[in-house]
Amino acid sequence: MLQTIGMQAKAAVPMMQKMNTDLKNKVLKAVGDALIGNTETILAANRVDMENGKTSGLNEGLLDRLKLTSERIRGMAEGLYQLVVLEDPIGEVLQMKKRPNGLIIGQKRVPLGVVGIIYEARPNVTTDAFGLCFKTGNVVVLKGGSDALHSNKAIVDCIRETLTENAIDVNAIQLIEDTNRETTTAFMKMNEYIDILIPRGGAGLIQAVVKNSTIPVIETGTGNCHIFVDESADLTMATDIIINAKTQRIGVCNACESLLVHEKVKDALLPVLAERLKEFQVEVRADQQASALMPGAVEATEEDWGTEYLDYIISIKTVTSVDEAIEHINKYNTKHSEAIITSDYMNAQKFLDEVDAAAVYVNASTRYTDGFEFGFGAEIGISTQKLHARGPMGLTALTTTKYIIYGTGQVRP
Amino acid sequence: MLQTIGMQAKAAVPMMQKMNTDLKNKVLKAVGDALIGNTETILAANRVDMENGKTSGLNEGLLDRLKLTSERIRGMAEGLYQLVVLEDPIGEVLQMKKRPNGLIIGQKRVPLGVVGIIYEARPNVTTDAFGLCFKTGNVVVLKGGSDALHSNKAIVDCIRETLTENAIDVNAIQLIEDTNRETTTAFMKMNEYIDILIPRGGAGLIQAVVKNSTIPVIETGTGNCHIFVDESADLTMATDIIINAKTQRIGVCNACESLLVHEKVKDALLPVLAERLKEFQVEVRADQQASALMPGAVEATEEDWGTEYLDYIISIKTVTSVDEAIEHINKYNTKHSEAIITSDYMNAQKFLDEVDAAAVYVNASTRYTDGFEFGFGAEIGISTQKLHARGPMGLTALTTTKYIIYGTGQVRP
Repeated sequence: MLQTIGMQAKAAVPMMQKMNTDLKNKVLKAVGDALIGNTETILAANRVDMENGKTSGLNEGLLDRLKLTSERIRGMAEGLYQLVVLEDPIGEVLQMKKRPNGLIIGQKRVPLGVVGIIYEARPNVTTDAFGLCFKTGNVVVLKGGSDALHSNKAIVDCIRETLTENAIDVNAIQLIEDTNRETTTAFMKMNEYIDILIPRGGAGLIQAVVKNSTIPVIETGTGNCHIFVDESADLTMATDIIINAKTQRIGVCNACESLLVHEKVKDALLPVLAERLKEFQVEVRADQQASALMPGAVEATEEDWGTEYLDYIISIKTVTSVDEAIEHINKYNTKHSEAIITSDYMNAQKFLDEVDAAAVYVNASTRYTDGFEFGFGAEIGISTQKLHARGPMGLTALTTTKYIIYGTGQVRP
Repeated sequence: MLQTIGMQAKAAVPMMQKMNTDLKNKVLKAVGDALIGNTETILAANRVDMENGKTSGLNEGLLDRLKLTSERIRGMAEGLYQLVVLEDPIGEVLQMKKRPNGLIIGQKRVPLGVVGIIYEARPNVTTDAFGLCFKTGNVVVLKGGSDALHSNKAIVDCIRETLTENAIDVNAIQLIEDTNRETTTAFMKMNEYIDILIPRGGAGLIQAVVKNSTIPVIETGTGNCHIFVDESADLTMATDIIINAKTQRIGVCNACESLLVHEKVKDALLPVLAERLKEFQVEVRADQQASALMPGAVEATEEDWGTEYLDYIISIKTVTSVDEAIEHINKYNTKHSEAIITSDYMNAQKFLDEVDAAAVYVNASTRYTDGFEFGFGAEIGISTQKLHARGPMGLTALTTTKYIIYGTGQVRP
């Protein structure tokens, strides 16, 4: 079964690689329309998954990721419409130049081939992954979490119907419906059929893929994201950014999980912040100095500094300098998104230079690390590794290049 | 011991990442001078390796890769001098733009951190790897083949002396001298210390690294490279290119291993080519149609089509069209370098579009796939995978990026 899926994916590659941009755009638009047109069918399937999820005791963060609404489906369609207007990167030739011997050497953007995506219970990943892969001429094979199986099947059915209506091989997108672990492990070793594997989900899933896959992997991110409030910070701005980064949406990888506060502003900041966090019922786990200023705070343990809560919990630590903040962040972070709130030029530049992460912010919420917010359209994930792509991955992350060389008989002396 | 090497490498990272370009260039120049100044010492060490290699029965291709001469050492120094004049990519900010919400988002080039290189008996890789890593602010840990141990030690000693003279942490480069297999396997799992692993050598080494490494790998290439002579080819040009690509240096990955000939030109081309190949004592393994035209040719087996000889051997197959040639190449090639010799515009474009390889040529020798020839200076290897870098890898292949975001208090609505 898995073998058949692999062969069908590979067979769809030449068709996808030759497809012109006009047709790709027409189909993306049609798929977006079909998603909206099938809202009731998709929501009905999603309700089955939500009921099952509640029964099996999924936590609030996971249920939030799983849940679809007509507004969220419209958002998924919107992601596809945004791709229509984005430039197709395939065929672009970078850096064509003439060498002294007369060879003309260019670097041409081409599709990767077959992209495998392993993800958890976020049905919106299904349309994002399809849209980005389709626009870049890649075939996609999806392995979603069992908790979202009904939602994903409804979405993929909708997409494949639209492909059929446009006389395109439906195997441009396939969903692996078998959700047992052995199938997933076998999928990670299909080097013959899959060119690149992108896991998207929690730390457990990602590490399992990194450890077991023999296919090249792009590691997408868990986010233990920090905000550091420097001594020169505008404290109203700091409070607004912390509240936004912590509470605007808790179940996402770019939410703030840990706060570092310069000791010189802790007295002015923390009591006010405690009041604001209380409004959202955020649990505070803090070191002694911070706890003393925040009624109801519990003492943080070593484990808290390294934890991505994905919940209404925040850890808080007092530091004595920007250097101590940077050192703490580089020790405990997951290389995702980090922010400094400051009015000091040197400290801002130092933080940008020395913090090792995919996205480093001055005076803004970490919640902006996102393909839409960066202007890429839908994103395939946020890479926290250093190879190929780092940060939100849009269209070009799903391409590779090949050198094309025009000669007139050159031989190497 | 390996643990110590890892810790020392990691400890050298901040120093390397902050080093300015002037100092890096000064050191590269000094290392080049030191290599030339120590030519006799290095050649003496290399003679030990060559004697050992002959005793243990290394084949001619491997001995050619191992051998150093004063000219080759000068070439290694030249590679470093060329790096001096190349622009330092570190710190470059790509695509800085202002979003509608006022956030200013840029993408900044930064070093990878610690680069591990696993290679065989080519001592020139030692200086190439050091030069490219040093210029890009990366720490390098080398694991060379046991056959080149004396040569590599002499070269690394020379480099570390120069680092000491410039008050730089010598652990910017370390050589793992323990050559047993367990050490190599342990090295491939040092995720805590090594950011990226680049194997450079034969198919066995590369596959062992791809299968066993838990560190992200850049797969560098074995090359089963083809030349296709189309019916419209200039046959004198074709003959010159084939002879060059096959015989100019046999032990390298971009040498031609297999020839495809359009049936309409086989009678005019092959007898002449047979004479030229005989001058270089190249063994011909051909299909029946080609064999009939080439005295002394033996019949090719299925295995020949997939073999990288690295020797004075070439396989030859007759085809009936450019499509058949492309299909054969995409089935048997290693995605390295492929060439068409043609005067036909449509066939040239079709070949460039449809052949899946890192470098695709029209009317030139495959021997040009090389960092120097592409104008990158020394190369770290030729990537035959599709992620991160494809083809000859120069400076930018050893960098990553991070997003830097300048805000004024933005929070996500």
